[in-house]
Amino acid sequence: MKQLENAALLVNESLFATANGYIGVRGNFEEGYPNGYDTKHGTYLNGFYDTHVIKYSESAFGFPEIGETIVNVLDGQKILIHIDGDIFSVFEGQVLSFDRKLDLDKGYSYRKIHWKSPKGHEVVLEFSRMTSFVTRELFVIDLEVESLNYEGDIKIESFIDGRIKKSQDTDDPRVATEHIKPLVIKNIDHDHKHMTIKAQTEHSKSWVSLDCSHNLAGEIQALNDYIRYQTNQQISKGETIRFSKFMIYTDGHKHDNQQVGSTLLQEALDKGCDKLFAEQSAYLSDFWSRCAVDIMDEKDLTYAVRYSQYQLLAAAGIDGVSQVAAKGLTGAGYEGHYFWDTEIYVIPFFTLTNPELAKSILKYRYNILEASKERSLQLGHTRGAKIPWRTIAGRECSSYFPAGTAQYHINADVAFGYIQYYLMTEDKDMMKSFGFELLYETALLWLEVGHFSNGEFCIDAVTGPDEYTAVVNNNYYTNSMAKYHLEWTVKLYEEFGQAIADDKSIDEMKNAANLMRLPYDATLNIHMQDDDFLNKKVWDFDNTPKDKYPLLLNYHPLTIYRHQVLKQADTVLSHFLLDNVSDEIMMDSYNYYEPLTTHDSSLSPCVYGMMASRINRPDRAYDFFKKTVYLDLEDLHSNTKDGIHIANAGGTYMTIVYGFGGLRIKEDGIHLKPTKPHEWKGYSFSFVYKDALVKVQVTDKLIISTNQPITLIVDNRTIHVNDQLEVEYNGKH
Amino acid sequence: MKQLENAALLVNESLFATANGYIGVRGNFEEGYPNGYDTKHGTYLNGFYDTHVIKYSESAFGFPEIGETIVNVLDGQKILIHIDGDIFSVFEGQVLSFDRKLDLDKGYSYRKIHWKSPKGHEVVLEFSRMTSFVTRELFVIDLEVESLNYEGDIKIESFIDGRIKKSQDTDDPRVATEHIKPLVIKNIDHDHKHMTIKAQTEHSKSWVSLDCSHNLAGEIQALNDYIRYQTNQQISKGETIRFSKFMIYTDGHKHDNQQVGSTLLQEALDKGCDKLFAEQSAYLSDFWSRCAVDIMDEKDLTYAVRYSQYQLLAAAGIDGVSQVAAKGLTGAGYEGHYFWDTEIYVIPFFTLTNPELAKSILKYRYNILEASKERSLQLGHTRGAKIPWRTIAGRECSSYFPAGTAQYHINADVAFGYIQYYLMTEDKDMMKSFGFELLYETALLWLEVGHFSNGEFCIDAVTGPDEYTAVVNNNYYTNSMAKYHLEWTVKLYEEFGQAIADDKSIDEMKNAANLMRLPYDATLNIHMQDDDFLNKKVWDFDNTPKDKYPLLLNYHPLTIYRHQVLKQADTVLSHFLLDNVSDEIMMDSYNYYEPLTTHDSSLSPCVYGMMASRINRPDRAYDFFKKTVYLDLEDLHSNTKDGIHIANAGGTYMTIVYGFGGLRIKEDGIHLKPTKPHEWKGYSFSFVYKDALVKVQVTDKLIISTNQPITLIVDNRTIHVNDQLEVEYNGKH
Repeated sequence: MKQLENAALLVNESLFATANGYIGVRGNFEEGYPNGYDTKHGTYLNGFYDTHVIKYSESAFGFPEIGETIVNVLDGQKILIHIDGDIFSVFEGQVLSFDRKLDLDKGYSYRKIHWKSPKGHEVVLEFSRMTSFVTRELFVIDLEVESLNYEGDIKIESFIDGRIKKSQDTDDPRVATEHIKPLVIKNIDHDHKHMTIKAQTEHSKSWVSLDCSHNLAGEIQALNDYIRYQTNQQISKGETIRFSKFMIYTDGHKHDNQQVGSTLLQEALDKGCDKLFAEQSAYLSDFWSRCAVDIMDEKDLTYAVRYSQYQLLAAAGIDGVSQVAAKGLTGAGYEGHYFWDTEIYVIPFFTLTNPELAKSILKYRYNILEASKERSLQLGHTRGAKIPWRTIAGRECSSYFPAGTAQYHINADVAFGYIQYYLMTEDKDMMKSFGFELLYETALLWLEVGHFSNGEFCIDAVTGPDEYTAVVNNNYYTNSMAKYHLEWTVKLYEEFGQAIADDKSIDEMKNAANLMRLPYDATLNIHMQDDDFLNKKVWDFDNTPKDKYPLLLNYHPLTIYRHQVLKQADTVLSHFLLDNVSDEIMMDSYNYYEPLTTHDSSLSPCVYGMMASRINRPDRAYDFFKKTVYLDLEDLHSNTKDGIHIANAGGTYMTIVYGFGGLRIKEDGIHLKPTKPHEWKGYSFSFVYKDALVKVQVTDKLIISTNQPITLIVDNRTIHVNDQLEVEYNGKH
Repeated sequence: MKQLENAALLVNESLFATANGYIGVRGNFEEGYPNGYDTKHGTYLNGFYDTHVIKYSESAFGFPEIGETIVNVLDGQKILIHIDGDIFSVFEGQVLSFDRKLDLDKGYSYRKIHWKSPKGHEVVLEFSRMTSFVTRELFVIDLEVESLNYEGDIKIESFIDGRIKKSQDTDDPRVATEHIKPLVIKNIDHDHKHMTIKAQTEHSKSWVSLDCSHNLAGEIQALNDYIRYQTNQQISKGETIRFSKFMIYTDGHKHDNQQVGSTLLQEALDKGCDKLFAEQSAYLSDFWSRCAVDIMDEKDLTYAVRYSQYQLLAAAGIDGVSQVAAKGLTGAGYEGHYFWDTEIYVIPFFTLTNPELAKSILKYRYNILEASKERSLQLGHTRGAKIPWRTIAGRECSSYFPAGTAQYHINADVAFGYIQYYLMTEDKDMMKSFGFELLYETALLWLEVGHFSNGEFCIDAVTGPDEYTAVVNNNYYTNSMAKYHLEWTVKLYEEFGQAIADDKSIDEMKNAANLMRLPYDATLNIHMQDDDFLNKKVWDFDNTPKDKYPLLLNYHPLTIYRHQVLKQADTVLSHFLLDNVSDEIMMDSYNYYEPLTTHDSSLSPCVYGMMASRINRPDRAYDFFKKTVYLDLEDLHSNTKDGIHIANAGGTYMTIVYGFGGLRIKEDGIHLKPTKPHEWKGYSFSFVYKDALVKVQVTDKLIISTNQPITLIVDNRTIHVNDQLEVEYNGKH
């Protein structure tokens, strides 16, 4: 059975992970694997990390000294089912049928096995695993065992376990090279029902606790570093036993005290499994009502897009001390760090469909503002805040500055996320209570890194989004985004900034924005990626064999930096986000940069896809869409085993709404420029604008419906919709 | 006594180190130090290293994986002198006088102490330490103890010791952050006279051996990891006891077998101390006859310059498997690595005064050519050789590529050293047997890294000598040196290259050299350090407090890279070496770049000093000369404790000969443009041109004498000297 082969299992551990923005449990089998099977066993808590000393062979001033890495926490997955002396395993006996799914509507993962034991007993096992969106600390495994031909004893063992392994061990720089030691067990305890293990991270001394109980009475035995529960049940032919395991995770970053786990566990037990699953279903029903994308008559594609939307929800930390890791909570790739991915690729989904969640996610950057201000001083600046390139709790954790600290654009990216949210919601309260302060402190940094040269405001020695070019001068993306950032800070100053900012700095900002250098090449009619980019040698793509991609794993950075070659969209990304250059420049820019782009970053195809829609290249748009939507589901980058590419999940959503739908959030309102892939009969998506829930359906017709009167701009024409309106649109392909 | 204070002792451990190009013994006291004294105890063998895995938190393709680090080897320094129950120590009893010197003419370090023991016995102790230039494996400590008022027993203990400590432990990136474990003892043995310890490096498994014997009979006891020798002598008032300790170091990089040490030891014993010291004296007499610089009536300055010359000799590995470490053999700073310093700052001295040694040193790069070719492929090039930025045995050991691997200019620097040697000696045999091949393979790399853009040959993404600017495009120094390198390779091809090179590549080289981009700014009339340098912000020197220098220890690299600020001469260094731009450009260039230069590198002041002479700024020239000549002797960089700055020692010599003397080695012959600092009555220096030994004396007159007829170019006029000639010269200040 192909899906039980090792490689497929590893990928499926990520694809069928169960996560709720706080807890993430990889889709490991409860019963385990035979020896020699490669499995990445893992449970992660968003924002829960240990620290380690970052080692450098040659260090320099300002290199981060302490790193933060997500920790594989206490394990609650293990359940062993003994049937007449055989322990259930899909690798023993006979698997007569095997089915697995992630139920996006009800919010749980599900595994069903029709199994014949070595002794010939046939049972059907159904595992439902759920991490609750209602009680984020809750993880439930609900098991049903149905006997088809067996009559007798069934023994079920269930464990909670402190014997944690490192979940990553690899040289791939995209995963992690610094490793964290397992947790230190501090306390193991149980009574007749309730089991609990409390542990601590080795260096940061943060506590984490796992409380567990079961629906069936059993015997409990605590050992040195794990607790074993056992229940013995009688089963008859045709009968079903239901076994539910309730687990509560709590930790010292999120929770004030170590007793809360026990309280939450009791609440869950009191509700019982059915009610907990019903709550989950209700939560998701509400969620989908605002965001569900539909592609008419394309069930698989629709599922794939919704799978991405679901992953975004499952990844999003909304408690202010966590945010959205590059792999969500489905793996420890990139050490569980938060990057610019969140604001540019993930937040748009929440801003459009779930502004409350968007606001919670945005606030995280404000909560690390003090650390960001310290970092700015550390780098030699005199004011402002430098948002860390990768971090969990606010420390800069990037140990390779040319593709890390040098990416100053993250300041503008975060600001962009704030501004877009504000334009969509007009949430003045947010701007007043923390938004403006963040915009202002991060904008101050531009005044520190930039300077005037030949009458232009120049920003030297930074790295743009494209990491195949590093530490360059006047990266167009950075400069154009900084300009937007500065302009909006100036614009919002009067209303929100009196207590925070001063006139002098605001004037400086105005001046810098006005005179921002935006390198442009008249011959090619494109913005240059940076001052020197066009003078470099074009990468010899013709003589680069396929197995030399991704280039970063096959060429020294200097060899890459020396060439015109992109890992990912850079100038074109600015054109997508800001949508503020002429159609001709957009087209020329796309045509120049796209052939130079390897798309070695998963952040790239979606952007080029959306811009292909923008410049009316439907064939390319659809190509990129397919690469985006199936990136994880078909493991196109061969590293889904390390976790889902969350930014790409955001990109998948955006490819529909921003790409085909042509949506842009601008100062004058919401713009739509719908196009329809000729492969489709039609598609629809929804968004929440101010308080209205708006649905857009694109077939040969464009139908917009809303629950409140709204004004939109379709193909540059302002239209008013009261409840439902058919609108003429241009982009029919 | 100030010179017995800890800080002074540490510096003196470097200044009074005893070295001979193979062995380097720091000037530690034989009798040791009290507890709590900070001392860097060390003995090093040139070219003897251990390997270690280089750790990266975020690695990338082509980053060096294995580093090489010089090893603190078996210790032979310890001698304890017991006088009536007291052990001699300058920290006990009373030091009535204390004297220390490095005898440059006789080639040994010397320490004399008039000591009163706690019991009141007065003795005079004289320690003479010598590492032989005749038998490079030999280290001798010759001790004389004279009793002034004591009569009785003297017990002398002498040790050879395998209990080695790491000699460095620091965060200063200029020293080392990777550490090597002590040696593993493999064998300890002795007979009634001869003691031997054989050990091995932990990772590279290279052997090292210390054989030792004494002139006086004694008892020997071998313990686990060291051997103790003891002799008891009677002394009377006025009598002197002479105690000589002979040691032979051998190692597996330099020596074929482990028995050679014992043979060499016997030879040394047979000769005896006096003869060994006499041989040393004769060697140095010959050495000084070809190179001694003299500054008339300036005894201290003359000593200081000759001290530098001596250090160059003491640092120079001439066996083909070793070369010249950044700190010579006086400390483990920079891990004992060989840099470009050798060819640009050190070899000129040997080329001018000791061509045989120059040739031996030059050959080392040929011996690592295969490793350099491998490195080129590793970086993604298809041909050519990339000389490692820092190495001992040929591996690239630089773990911070922006100021390491990116310094491609090292290829041209090495070539420059070869070409200058060739011009000075016309040594066709060298060119034929290995010189051209090295020039050619290293020149091929320029064709790999460069490309044509707008009709110019451009070299992108490299770092020049100035490490305060990194990974830039068209660094003028690199491009101009590459041009010289390519031109000479083309020029030498017909005579030496037929079997090695091919016409096509030579044509490519010709073309690249002809069209080499040499960025020039017409307004300022200077060559730009790189394409973008002049667009950057000028460093705010006015608001940088003194304690923020060196900048590299106080600002993040990005903050430094963002500014117009130099660590060391870059464009100006090209003008010095190639001497191929107009006087006006030289002057404008000096005036532009010098104020931007922090001289945070010890490679900088000498260059600016020489160029100050060149552009007729005698005040500045003399200033820089003083900074150069006293850099170590007065510990101006506060890090002489880590070892002597060997490149600066070369720079000191060059400041006289190239700076004040205006010497240049060019295709049309030896140029002189002498100037005389008005502070001096006069000065003289010598050099060997082809086979003539030429002496140049500059007072108000210029007198050139030679032992063979020669032709020179003085102030651009060709002159012939048969034996001695007074020549008119311009540069009288």
